[in-house]
Amino acid sequence: MENGVLKKCGCANSKVQQEMETPTNITIKGILGLLMSNIDGDDKRRAISLGMGDPTAYSCFHTSAVVEDAVVDTLRSQKFNGYCPTSGLPQARTAIAGYLSRNLPYKLSPDDVFVTAGCTQAIEVALSILARPGANILVPKPGFPIYELCAAFRHLEVRHFDLMPDKGWEVDLNAVEALADHNTVAMVIINPGNPCGNVYSYQHLKKIAESAKKLKIPVIADEVYGHLAFGGKPFVPMGVFGSIAPVLTLGSLSKRWLVPGWRLGWLVTTDPNIAFKSPKVVERIKKYFDICGGPATFIQAAVPRILEQTEEVFFRKTLSILKQSSDICCDMIKEIPCITCTHKPEGSMALMVKLNLSKLKDISDDIDFCFKLVKEESVIILPGLTVGLKNWLRITFAAEPSSLEEALGRVKSFCERHSNQQERY
Amino acid sequence: MENGVLKKCGCANSKVQQEMETPTNITIKGILGLLMSNIDGDDKRRAISLGMGDPTAYSCFHTSAVVEDAVVDTLRSQKFNGYCPTSGLPQARTAIAGYLSRNLPYKLSPDDVFVTAGCTQAIEVALSILARPGANILVPKPGFPIYELCAAFRHLEVRHFDLMPDKGWEVDLNAVEALADHNTVAMVIINPGNPCGNVYSYQHLKKIAESAKKLKIPVIADEVYGHLAFGGKPFVPMGVFGSIAPVLTLGSLSKRWLVPGWRLGWLVTTDPNIAFKSPKVVERIKKYFDICGGPATFIQAAVPRILEQTEEVFFRKTLSILKQSSDICCDMIKEIPCITCTHKPEGSMALMVKLNLSKLKDISDDIDFCFKLVKEESVIILPGLTVGLKNWLRITFAAEPSSLEEALGRVKSFCERHSNQQERY
Repeated sequence: MENGVLKKCGCANSKVQQEMETPTNITIKGILGLLMSNIDGDDKRRAISLGMGDPTAYSCFHTSAVVEDAVVDTLRSQKFNGYCPTSGLPQARTAIAGYLSRNLPYKLSPDDVFVTAGCTQAIEVALSILARPGANILVPKPGFPIYELCAAFRHLEVRHFDLMPDKGWEVDLNAVEALADHNTVAMVIINPGNPCGNVYSYQHLKKIAESAKKLKIPVIADEVYGHLAFGGKPFVPMGVFGSIAPVLTLGSLSKRWLVPGWRLGWLVTTDPNIAFKSPKVVERIKKYFDICGGPATFIQAAVPRILEQTEEVFFRKTLSILKQSSDICCDMIKEIPCITCTHKPEGSMALMVKLNLSKLKDISDDIDFCFKLVKEESVIILPGLTVGLKNWLRITFAAEPSSLEEALGRVKSFCERHSNQQERY
Repeated sequence: MENGVLKKCGCANSKVQQEMETPTNITIKGILGLLMSNIDGDDKRRAISLGMGDPTAYSCFHTSAVVEDAVVDTLRSQKFNGYCPTSGLPQARTAIAGYLSRNLPYKLSPDDVFVTAGCTQAIEVALSILARPGANILVPKPGFPIYELCAAFRHLEVRHFDLMPDKGWEVDLNAVEALADHNTVAMVIINPGNPCGNVYSYQHLKKIAESAKKLKIPVIADEVYGHLAFGGKPFVPMGVFGSIAPVLTLGSLSKRWLVPGWRLGWLVTTDPNIAFKSPKVVERIKKYFDICGGPATFIQAAVPRILEQTEEVFFRKTLSILKQSSDICCDMIKEIPCITCTHKPEGSMALMVKLNLSKLKDISDDIDFCFKLVKEESVIILPGLTVGLKNWLRITFAAEPSSLEEALGRVKSFCERHSNQQERY
């Protein structure tokens, strides 16, 4: 991002528009960087970002002492400064297999688990090993732009299926079946949902598996927000339906343990019928890991203690704050006529809200909204187009409640100022 | 590696032979795993590996307390649990630029530096961003197999140029110029040398740069063993000649700081004439990093303290042990007629020795030698074919002197037992 030459709002705005034409150019961090560079230096108020799923700057979202101590101890032991096998340290693979098996009707083997440098690398590996000339992959819209970027680097065609806002952001399975052909190598789901904050029911996940079975494709289940469900529905891992269709489960310590910077993730073949074995997918995954730089050995060595000893009270506290902050978010948005929350968040750290442009006098679209907002109010929100949905906004509610209230208060002022219905206020 | 089904020496041996037919299947760790599985369980002696450039199991090769404390402190600060920019944490990029600039005739900018998950990821990124349909890359033989494996995944043709054993493993520059064509995207050098233990002179590096200039290609300079030079010649970074031909410098904390498992490396555009800018290489690198999982943020945050405060005495101690152990290695090899050390090591942690098959009665080649050696003596040495040189051996001398002596003593017994010149002993 050439932030330096794009200080002027208008210029950055047109640059963003231009980048949006080629979706492989978009990354959330890139757009947030551009927005950040448009903060008015004369604004005496602190800048507040509701842009990224990384709440670690807020003390209420610090990780547990158990987790931190586990890593300090493996580092201090001096036993884990050396290389480990490229697929991951055996004890980490065993611990991850055990952790995921708790919620599955069968036991995973350590051989099913590959330890990755965060969920990003798990995505990269999954797409790389599935890519072949002419292949395509089915990806949700809205979704997470790393999928598009990875697919572009690996010459994998992306076909988008809709998530349906009026049906709790469920997958449009008719669209999935219509998009797939004999060159389709997988479909991606993200559950709990980013960017939508939804959680899929057992029944809907089963239907997804049945569609995948019909299409003879595996499901890539991005569960980086796994267990971060605080609404009515429990989190059900896609692997539960692994016997219907093979699943590549992607996950990490990042969100549940609040350590996204530790880059400790996993790619797991959740495949009790060994459907992956015949196309040699597993063999290809093993080989691919030989060229990947994985996570630090001493962090991997801490994984067993982290997965087995983190206190339930730590998880409950995180869920309780996320529930509280998502409630604040929805309640305050109700007071802002030009933004509609169509679906109350049930999980993850973000939600999508609809922008009602007809109620605004001088805002042309979601990008214009976000660039003017940051300029005038020092609040950063992600334009929906970044995640595939024009004239929506993605708001991260994983922030300290007081910051969230302050930020949304400023959004409200901004909307009032730009409203074409002044009499309503 | 399917070690489980390959316990029998003969079977593993033929599997290795078969894998060698397709060099993209070879990895050092893979072959070492196979060798390891052939250790005789009934041998009461400890197994000793002289197979991998990872000496961290030996207490004389433990990292400095300064280095360890730096990471504990950034972790304990709770300030670095979050994401950092995909190109790297700004303070780490600045520190690496400063560190490398100490040995260059110009100053690198932090923007020239990209922080990677070890040197392996730096190799992967370098090859990925240079790959395009029909492209080829010039790689040394003997060399480091990750280059071949990466190139295969990125559909980049590999062309090998020889390193000349009778000229201190210098690059055969005539071969380089003969191999290159308009589809050649780069040449790779590894200095200090892995697997040969050589260190290139200022003059030879300058000639390499001049060849690259003539061919209009950049040099990928793998300096993962940077500064580990203990012979007569000092380590000169390839970047010194960056104004002759652009250089992509790859390095890491792994070897000099004895922490290969920390996965903290770098890819640096050492390119004072900005030759990279025109083909948009730098733009492509930036974008590529968005799909990479890099090293942990807290380890990156420790890089400034590590690079600035590690005591000279720590570096000197490592060099002194490496010098001592490489001397032991050469001296003991002189006593083994069937192995010849053609060039005394001057750097890195390994050397190549020639196997004289004519002096052995029942050894067919380097692979046969290594598999029988591990079975009979519980000593692991890497077959030369793994690094591209049939009927040579790669011996890692980065081991505690007593272990090295014990291992080479066993190699001597093995060779005596298999010698066809019994009368000589």
